[in-house]
Amino acid sequence: MKMFGAIEAGGTKFVCAVGDENFNIIDRISFPTTYPGETMERIFDFFDRYKDLKAIGIGSFGPIDINIHSEKYGYITSTPKTNWRNFNFLGEMKKHYNLPIGWTTDVNAACLGEYEIGSAVDNHSCLYLTVGTGIGGGAILDGKIIEGFGHTEMGHIIIRNHPHDDFEGVCPYHKNCLEGLAAGPSIEKRYGIKAENLDEDHRIWRIVAYYLAQALVNYTLILRPEKIILGGGVMNQAGMIDFVREAFASLLAGYVETPDLDSYIVTPSLGDNAGIIGGLILARRAL
Amino acid sequence: MKMFGAIEAGGTKFVCAVGDENFNIIDRISFPTTYPGETMERIFDFFDRYKDLKAIGIGSFGPIDINIHSEKYGYITSTPKTNWRNFNFLGEMKKHYNLPIGWTTDVNAACLGEYEIGSAVDNHSCLYLTVGTGIGGGAILDGKIIEGFGHTEMGHIIIRNHPHDDFEGVCPYHKNCLEGLAAGPSIEKRYGIKAENLDEDHRIWRIVAYYLAQALVNYTLILRPEKIILGGGVMNQAGMIDFVREAFASLLAGYVETPDLDSYIVTPSLGDNAGIIGGLILARRAL
Repeated sequence: MKMFGAIEAGGTKFVCAVGDENFNIIDRISFPTTYPGETMERIFDFFDRYKDLKAIGIGSFGPIDINIHSEKYGYITSTPKTNWRNFNFLGEMKKHYNLPIGWTTDVNAACLGEYEIGSAVDNHSCLYLTVGTGIGGGAILDGKIIEGFGHTEMGHIIIRNHPHDDFEGVCPYHKNCLEGLAAGPSIEKRYGIKAENLDEDHRIWRIVAYYLAQALVNYTLILRPEKIILGGGVMNQAGMIDFVREAFASLLAGYVETPDLDSYIVTPSLGDNAGIIGGLILARRAL
Repeated sequence: MKMFGAIEAGGTKFVCAVGDENFNIIDRISFPTTYPGETMERIFDFFDRYKDLKAIGIGSFGPIDINIHSEKYGYITSTPKTNWRNFNFLGEMKKHYNLPIGWTTDVNAACLGEYEIGSAVDNHSCLYLTVGTGIGGGAILDGKIIEGFGHTEMGHIIIRNHPHDDFEGVCPYHKNCLEGLAAGPSIEKRYGIKAENLDEDHRIWRIVAYYLAQALVNYTLILRPEKIILGGGVMNQAGMIDFVREAFASLLAGYVETPDLDSYIVTPSLGDNAGIIGGLILARRAL
């Protein structure tokens, strides 16, 4: 039985795991994201105990450099987390482990997990979007992660304000892009309390659903994925996925065919494990 | 020397061509798009003269069915051109020619032409957008046309109105989507005269550029292509490509890296031949 390592490197916490070739998780650890030196020590402490790992897969918060021809391939680049800016994450891992190491974004890794053994297991293409303190997405087509000059940044697309929401947005780059209007911090900024403390029937949830639906319409028209998987804290809100489906149908106006919306716009079937399982898959692919 | 056939099936005219394996065009014909029976006769008359064709490639106006598992694979589907609705274009071709036949949209074919031997010849990915009486786009990543549940419909993405343009849009499905706000008919509807008859310094050109730039920002964030190629009649407007580049830089706000904008946002190097050359490439691929 081959053993693989996986790292889900998030902006607030890291998860490291070891799993077998069927992606059963055998051991895992989780710790807060502090600064690179300390974090790398914890990673090494964990994986050093497994001498028979065949490969490791990393899904990292970003932006990261994924261009193998770039001098900064494997770096975390222009993140607002200044400790981590220009940190050669993959390089540090390779110095310590003489193993094949897969490298992509956290959302691409989660997308890969859902694609291979999750909600999109029967599909040839899918898109994964997480909606929480930020919004990020990844897409896979015929097994291949969609990326070109760099990785995708689907959370920052331009959308239009809801007719009853003139909020200016919180994105430091774009103000009222998708993330600036629909991620958790935008909700908190509007009302001065955390999103999860707002009533279930608060008007904001329909507004957020309208923003997400706009994004999904654009993803649909630009990529035509067979499935869209919505994760993250905001999607835990009661009824949210139905609100998104309703707004999506209204906005797309039947222009292109999609699968039935109940099977097209879905939640992750791997739950919080999508990213770490995606890391194991990435490891196997690296091998 | 292998010989290939190509069809660029447009909503207003058809182009048929025969070319060699280096995509040199040896013969071509063009005729107006009337109704399927007459049009197919003209196609057959043209290609029947070439007995040694190895394959044919078709880039068709749409929407078309490109799902090989679908019963309607090869059909033109819900086009507003009622004569052509539910016409089994590929099926009629296959009845007449016992040859491999490639099948995709007109914009995907043009994208393929630019990718293989045009503006994106040195890139691994590109996006092609045509802006004329309609807006359509195609994208290629590592040689593969981006498509999933169906082909892309990039012209209909949701964008926001320019602060000084409250035009309601002309798209019959979405009113003020990209095509509804920025294609030729929207310009004509605003001013009652054809777009090409408006002054070079008319304010509409900056507004159109703003709409196109929004689309390009979203394509960039969702696909990260290495090059974006803008064709079609509206792009012939003096200065338009520079207006688009300027608006793009302003809207993206440096959030992700792109190639230098003068080499990122470009015009087609195959000009009006992109589609038909793409058809020849499609034919070679079908073989």
